[in-house]
Amino acid sequence: MSAGRNFLFIPGPTNMPETVRRAMGGAQEDQRAPDVPDFTLPLFADLKKVFQMKTGHVLVFAGTGTGGWEAAITNTLSPGDGVLASRFGLFSQLWAELCQRHGLAVDAIDVEWGEGVPVAAYAERLKADRAHKIKAVLVTHNETATGVASDVAAVRRALDEAKHPALLFVDGVSSIASIDFRMEEWGVDIAVAGSQKGFMMPTGLAIVAVSEKALAAMATAKLPRSYFSFDDMLRMNKNGYFPYTPPMTMLRGLRASVDLLLGEGLPNVFARHHRMAEAVRRAVGAWGLSLVAKAPQWHSDTVSTIWTPPGVDGAELVRHAYRRYNLSLGVGLARLAGKVFRIGHLGELNELMVLAALSGAEMTMRDLGATLAPGSGVAAAEEHFRATAPKTN
Amino acid sequence: MSAGRNFLFIPGPTNMPETVRRAMGGAQEDQRAPDVPDFTLPLFADLKKVFQMKTGHVLVFAGTGTGGWEAAITNTLSPGDGVLASRFGLFSQLWAELCQRHGLAVDAIDVEWGEGVPVAAYAERLKADRAHKIKAVLVTHNETATGVASDVAAVRRALDEAKHPALLFVDGVSSIASIDFRMEEWGVDIAVAGSQKGFMMPTGLAIVAVSEKALAAMATAKLPRSYFSFDDMLRMNKNGYFPYTPPMTMLRGLRASVDLLLGEGLPNVFARHHRMAEAVRRAVGAWGLSLVAKAPQWHSDTVSTIWTPPGVDGAELVRHAYRRYNLSLGVGLARLAGKVFRIGHLGELNELMVLAALSGAEMTMRDLGATLAPGSGVAAAEEHFRATAPKTN
Amino acid sequence: MSAGRNFLFIPGPTNMPETVRRAMGGAQEDQRAPDVPDFTLPLFADLKKVFQMKTGHVLVFAGTGTGGWEAAITNTLSPGDGVLASRFGLFSQLWAELCQRHGLAVDAIDVEWGEGVPVAAYAERLKADRAHKIKAVLVTHNETATGVASDVAAVRRALDEAKHPALLFVDGVSSIASIDFRMEEWGVDIAVAGSQKGFMMPTGLAIVAVSEKALAAMATAKLPRSYFSFDDMLRMNKNGYFPYTPPMTMLRGLRASVDLLLGEGLPNVFARHHRMAEAVRRAVGAWGLSLVAKAPQWHSDTVSTIWTPPGVDGAELVRHAYRRYNLSLGVGLARLAGKVFRIGHLGELNELMVLAALSGAEMTMRDLGATLAPGSGVAAAEEHFRATAPKTN
Amino acid sequence: MSAGRNFLFIPGPTNMPETVRRAMGGAQEDQRAPDVPDFTLPLFADLKKVFQMKTGHVLVFAGTGTGGWEAAITNTLSPGDGVLASRFGLFSQLWAELCQRHGLAVDAIDVEWGEGVPVAAYAERLKADRAHKIKAVLVTHNETATGVASDVAAVRRALDEAKHPALLFVDGVSSIASIDFRMEEWGVDIAVAGSQKGFMMPTGLAIVAVSEKALAAMATAKLPRSYFSFDDMLRMNKNGYFPYTPPMTMLRGLRASVDLLLGEGLPNVFARHHRMAEAVRRAVGAWGLSLVAKAPQWHSDTVSTIWTPPGVDGAELVRHAYRRYNLSLGVGLARLAGKVFRIGHLGELNELMVLAALSGAEMTMRDLGATLAPGSGVAAAEEHFRATAPKTN
Repeated sequence: MSAGRNFLFIPGPTNMPETVRRAMGGAQEDQRAPDVPDFTLPLFADLKKVFQMKTGHVLVFAGTGTGGWEAAITNTLSPGDGVLASRFGLFSQLWAELCQRHGLAVDAIDVEWGEGVPVAAYAERLKADRAHKIKAVLVTHNETATGVASDVAAVRRALDEAKHPALLFVDGVSSIASIDFRMEEWGVDIAVAGSQKGFMMPTGLAIVAVSEKALAAMATAKLPRSYFSFDDMLRMNKNGYFPYTPPMTMLRGLRASVDLLLGEGLPNVFARHHRMAEAVRRAVGAWGLSLVAKAPQWHSDTVSTIWTPPGVDGAELVRHAYRRYNLSLGVGLARLAGKVFRIGHLGELNELMVLAALSGAEMTMRDLGATLAPGSGVAAAEEHFRATAPKTN
Repeated sequence: MSAGRNFLFIPGPTNMPETVRRAMGGAQEDQRAPDVPDFTLPLFADLKKVFQMKTGHVLVFAGTGTGGWEAAITNTLSPGDGVLASRFGLFSQLWAELCQRHGLAVDAIDVEWGEGVPVAAYAERLKADRAHKIKAVLVTHNETATGVASDVAAVRRALDEAKHPALLFVDGVSSIASIDFRMEEWGVDIAVAGSQKGFMMPTGLAIVAVSEKALAAMATAKLPRSYFSFDDMLRMNKNGYFPYTPPMTMLRGLRASVDLLLGEGLPNVFARHHRMAEAVRRAVGAWGLSLVAKAPQWHSDTVSTIWTPPGVDGAELVRHAYRRYNLSLGVGLARLAGKVFRIGHLGELNELMVLAALSGAEMTMRDLGATLAPGSGVAAAEEHFRATAPKTN
Repeated sequence: MSAGRNFLFIPGPTNMPETVRRAMGGAQEDQRAPDVPDFTLPLFADLKKVFQMKTGHVLVFAGTGTGGWEAAITNTLSPGDGVLASRFGLFSQLWAELCQRHGLAVDAIDVEWGEGVPVAAYAERLKADRAHKIKAVLVTHNETATGVASDVAAVRRALDEAKHPALLFVDGVSSIASIDFRMEEWGVDIAVAGSQKGFMMPTGLAIVAVSEKALAAMATAKLPRSYFSFDDMLRMNKNGYFPYTPPMTMLRGLRASVDLLLGEGLPNVFARHHRMAEAVRRAVGAWGLSLVAKAPQWHSDTVSTIWTPPGVDGAELVRHAYRRYNLSLGVGLARLAGKVFRIGHLGELNELMVLAALSGAEMTMRDLGATLAPGSGVAAAEEHFRATAPKTN
Repeated sequence: MSAGRNFLFIPGPTNMPETVRRAMGGAQEDQRAPDVPDFTLPLFADLKKVFQMKTGHVLVFAGTGTGGWEAAITNTLSPGDGVLASRFGLFSQLWAELCQRHGLAVDAIDVEWGEGVPVAAYAERLKADRAHKIKAVLVTHNETATGVASDVAAVRRALDEAKHPALLFVDGVSSIASIDFRMEEWGVDIAVAGSQKGFMMPTGLAIVAVSEKALAAMATAKLPRSYFSFDDMLRMNKNGYFPYTPPMTMLRGLRASVDLLLGEGLPNVFARHHRMAEAVRRAVGAWGLSLVAKAPQWHSDTVSTIWTPPGVDGAELVRHAYRRYNLSLGVGLARLAGKVFRIGHLGELNELMVLAALSGAEMTMRDLGATLAPGSGVAAAEEHFRATAPKTN
């Protein structure tokens, strides 16, 4: 292997901070030890701060975001229940499909990729649904395939204006802990996050925030569930334990992660992500390229999906960056395969890491025949960083 | 905290070998990198060796054994399908209950705790089921609550003698990689293992071996499934990838674990477990105590469940051992609560580790008023170890 | 390799606590960074607490105890200076020899191995030395070869009674941070410690405490010195830096070590060592064996040197324990080779770790033909531990 | 602390590869165990390959390069012996001073900083020294203060042409394992390296290569030595052991380091360093700045010392880079303080790491008022990297 470290700029997993790595390096431990609740109960409480919620609960499963999607519906819905969804990228599409597999009546609005949740269309559907057949509304807060962020608060307003009782479910896998997300203020009923994005950990935890209203829905929900049962989990979590062996090593890492996030302060975390993202967007502009996200309102602060330069294949670009420069970029997914590449800019990042990735991207594009000027993206990002540098002493 | 390390003698999680710990300490990585299959495909192949199978597949999910149980049934069965099960401890009981939750018609034979799978009763039920309403037979290979091992091969014979086509599902969470388990020779269709027992890793992986026959059953199985879908997993695994972000850090640990197991040789691993287990049983005898397992045929080589001395509460015993001697023992579960304590003796263990645990157990029992002689259990175990020591140079 | 961990019971290096290991796992760093003094200055201050001194300095060199011995004399003495020493084990012998190599006039009193510093003889020599030709008095606080502790305070009294101005140098490599050592109260001028004993770290640091009086002696000391120069080190340490690249990784570990020691409290650390040592001595008695240390006043709380049972070779015993039971014991050194074995009982240890080592030692001795009863040493130690257990809740 | 990793671009310590870090994370071990020689003897042998020597020995001390300098002279010389040296930077100056402290008769030729060893002047002195009063000739292969590499082979030729028997000592602390160094071909008698530069480890080892001729000189050398005694070390190393407790954790890291170096192949290691260094030099040129090294013959492939832009203070530049961009650069030392900054480009580095450092340097200089164009240095380095990229597939 060649010398030197990999530069990881996919939209998850993200770079793991040293304190998280250390927290996960300890010996295995007894999940039923008397002092386990001294560890778990404060962790559960602090997780709620990350989701910006005071009521409800945050449940942690060994799993991934896909497991979180499944948990959301199987704990609250029954076969045939109506679900309002929208499809504007691979992940929003997959969640809708998952609902169909479980026998739900999904109304999935297709939106052009590059835009986000169609709030107006949602509002219309909700108003029209006098019978309240729609039991849940799905929002993919940040579509990782297209680099598009959606307006969750607007969906809440649409629900409120229609006086519609449907549950509001949010896929926050690539937004929560990186982009402002307000569980309680926005009236979200279930929010799904994963360990390997804003939480800066290895993949392997589905982190699911649940409102009191969603918990109440369990009473009538008839979809079968066992592993992801909220009920089993809550009954044991209440005392700091788990219904089956919990992933303690990952939970130790999660503790370190939450400490980092709350220590930095969520507003600072969000501002830092915005600053990094904006630097990437400046570079994209300097290269003469454009984002899949159609307008600034859709710009994602965690991932940029970029149309490749003329004549350059996106898959080849990603492969070349990896093999020649040890830079990991994201490929185009589904209908975007070959046409785009993605730069993940979330988690444990600073200016020089981003600049390294940008220099790797521009070398790669030039290697593959693109005509952009060497150093052009880096220069634009540098100027942005300099102009927005926080005060240091 | 007091100085010195914890002695972990619960039946999982188990002690993590240094090479596994190191393998899990690396940076996060791109799960779609071009060289990922160079890592995953050999891992999948070597996992089959651990299950002693040549056909079929081993699938790895972020999850736990409970998730594996759910995966087994949702991928192969339909609502109302008959399931033959037996209950002789908390875990065999929970699996049967999980099947019921998913709408299966479970015939669960209650067996006295301390015995294992009732082969004769199974044989009878299978012969009687001319209509083949039973679609799956469940066997808990090693009941972790009671320290009882069952005879999987005998269940296979019962199926064969009845010429019954039902699928054979085995919970091998606390047996596989520690006790001899032969997927192919015994005609097992799905076997469920977890990372935190014989694989000597943190909790967080459900490792599920699936026969070709079980795979074929997916075509007609109507239980809803998404996260644990074999189909999605197999389609991507074929090329070395995954349908959603895989827990790469854990997979790196699993590689190290499999290397250790195959490097030592499965027969040696099993013999080592037997030797450690026998030492514990000698100590139990020297203390004048007895096992919940009613006869040697049921003795588990991974966990011993021991009736407490007269007047000693099991929960108090476990708490005292932990707080005073930093020794983690297993508590009694369900109807055994307070009446027993458990010593897990699986995974990365050697003679002195076991002797330390035994000395801690005997000090604890004496502290709580039991009348056994100091050093008595240790002496019996020492003599066993000396008599069975492998040749060294 | 066989499964399971090594039991490290040599008198250094000792078992490394998890927090020390973690503290040493970070990235390399710039030793001239502006924030380095924020780390080093408090460390230097806290090290003084471990030596129980308020004036003077503690200097840390990449090196070992041998380097510390050399540092002590080359910084304070001139060729031909008189040194009063005593030899009662390999290490006291080597230090005297080192002084001779550097051209000092060493008066080394030979003492029977099994006893410690001959305070009466020292007092006599000091009184007789009216011309004050003796410039330094050497005391090996804990002779690691024989398991003998000496009375440093008594030597100080002898100096005071003789009104002798000689410097008092103490080899505290295997005592400091484990056995009570009082730099200031005892008027010690230079004390030498190493990282791999009571500090529970890897080998590689010579930790040298220096009194103001010793520092003043530098002005006239003519022995050549560069690497171990106190002067160069102090000049840079004053501002938190070093005269050449410091071993920052080790210093990070030292910070964690000092935090552990001061967090537990030195009196508790010393009491814990005494309790562990006493358990070993009870086992030795139960085995019918005896210590090289001739009387309780000489008993070391960090290492026990034990005469082997009749017919058992000490080197063979140590080799067998390592190869068969993964137990590392200390061999006999110099004239004790083959006749003894040593159990180190210092650093990060608890009851079960010690009991494991004792069980390994008794199995080993029985394997080699000794007639002691199985479990006898363990039983004696267990009873001691039970009788002296700290209150827990 | 702010998020994201530090970029370490000082000329040592350098970035630690993951395999080295892992190799150092293990438990402490018995340095006298029977299997230690199985580890140490092959390590000693492989270290000779790194120095490109077949005869002689490589000795490893807990220490630093300064200790290595001291070891070189105290093992081979006697008070009053003549030493030919030259001073053209802080480190060459310090080594000459160290010789003086030990009573040697040093003839130190002052050379303008920015040039290296004055071969012609050396040749002249050696020819004139008919009486062979010069016993040793010192060469600082790579002066870390000025970024100047010297021609060791030419000094050997000067010795040979003068038929002079003096020993040739080389300070290779910041060259060995990064820049071509040929112990045997160049007739070097002692070469000093440290762990924290080309060996990519933490600081804490002095690695000293010694020729047979230098070993023979020990017989008559009268300077006192103990800790750094070659004789004691060789006598024990012969059988794989050490005269005092060795830094086993560091030695485990050294094994991993040597495996990396020999695995990559020394010529590839040297070529990689040259490629990284040249990229930095291209950036310096693009910025309109110049190196302290006066001509290409003096260019160092491990560190570039760069005159600051007009009006920019070097210390302020380094402080700003660290505080604002988490970039560690080297300050100017001694007479260069404030006038230069240094970029270390040795060890575990790849293209993107170097580009990140260059972008940080150019942002810093612009922040401090320099007029260079944003992205200019990065662009020049990118073009160099692209033009010289090794083939990948």
